[in-house]
Amino acid sequence: MVILEKRISEEGIVAENDILKVGSFLNQQIDVPFMDALCQEFYNLYKNSNITKVLTIEASGISAATLTALHFGVPCVFAKKSHTTNLSGNLYKSEVYSFTHKCTNIAVVSQDYLSKNDRILIVDDFLANGAALSALIDIVNQAGATLVGCGILIEKLYQGGGNKLRQLGIRIESLAKIKNLYGKNGIEFEN
Amino acid sequence: MVILEKRISEEGIVAENDILKVGSFLNQQIDVPFMDALCQEFYNLYKNSNITKVLTIEASGISAATLTALHFGVPCVFAKKSHTTNLSGNLYKSEVYSFTHKCTNIAVVSQDYLSKNDRILIVDDFLANGAALSALIDIVNQAGATLVGCGILIEKLYQGGGNKLRQLGIRIESLAKIKNLYGKNGIEFEN
Repeated sequence: MVILEKRISEEGIVAENDILKVGSFLNQQIDVPFMDALCQEFYNLYKNSNITKVLTIEASGISAATLTALHFGVPCVFAKKSHTTNLSGNLYKSEVYSFTHKCTNIAVVSQDYLSKNDRILIVDDFLANGAALSALIDIVNQAGATLVGCGILIEKLYQGGGNKLRQLGIRIESLAKIKNLYGKNGIEFEN
Repeated sequence: MVILEKRISEEGIVAENDILKVGSFLNQQIDVPFMDALCQEFYNLYKNSNITKVLTIEASGISAATLTALHFGVPCVFAKKSHTTNLSGNLYKSEVYSFTHKCTNIAVVSQDYLSKNDRILIVDDFLANGAALSALIDIVNQAGATLVGCGILIEKLYQGGGNKLRQLGIRIESLAKIKNLYGKNGIEFEN
């Protein structure tokens, strides 16, 4: 989407270790009317797919998942991140390794909130190596629900996670695809 | 609000230690169209107050803050929770003691996202002893911004945090006020 690529070019900050900071409009501070326009696009892409729930992972995916769910008129569910596997209750659990924070978390969703009758759209802000997305897909599969597809705001193509999942037949729609990061002011998008 | 009290009565689960679980519609799973109707009410209450930003704390406040910000057409900012005071960058920081998890976190907001020109509405899902809300108010004060008021979905009146802050002159609007929790099916609201 041109409006997103433009905004990333204008406000994104490329930090060490290939980290792209978009805290001024997509996370920490969220330009909500702008984010809502992006989520409208997820609705356009999946409006004929009978989505019953939007799934994301805390914390920075919650805003986009909420606005997307509002367009569909359905609930959103967010996986919590836990540092321990010692959790009570009936839960779907899947491990997520964070390359940013160099630690493993457990993504956790109560079994009460996903079922085999659900048709799920997964929404997240970033897709890089695909660790968080793979955990959410694993949770959808544990629930026996149908994964309709994924809606991602920014995909870092060069980290390869998205294309690995596409090769498994998973539909992934990314609104901005970054081919390469070359440090400050060097963000190359795929057309 | 009658629709919120009704929903809490129907779906809320009272667990040990005075914990009210509303995970089926307000957090973990969020009934987004319902949540949006609640946030419309925050808009009605503060629409003449020239709000420039909505502030909350991760993770469960983000959904309500996002929808509220959408009604106002302004950005939302969420404070991150950190386990360490050893943080870099120009940050506003304030300690939050969690009675639920029995630990102290640091609420953190980049100084880039709040300024003295801002007129802030703080939104959160729960208000109990007021620890999280006090930290957010502290951050607004550090920024020299104007705190217009607070919008809370569920206030546990008997834990006293809300009334302590009201005595300091802070405007707090809570959509459901719980006077007492008496275990399962014993939720008493203040009219």
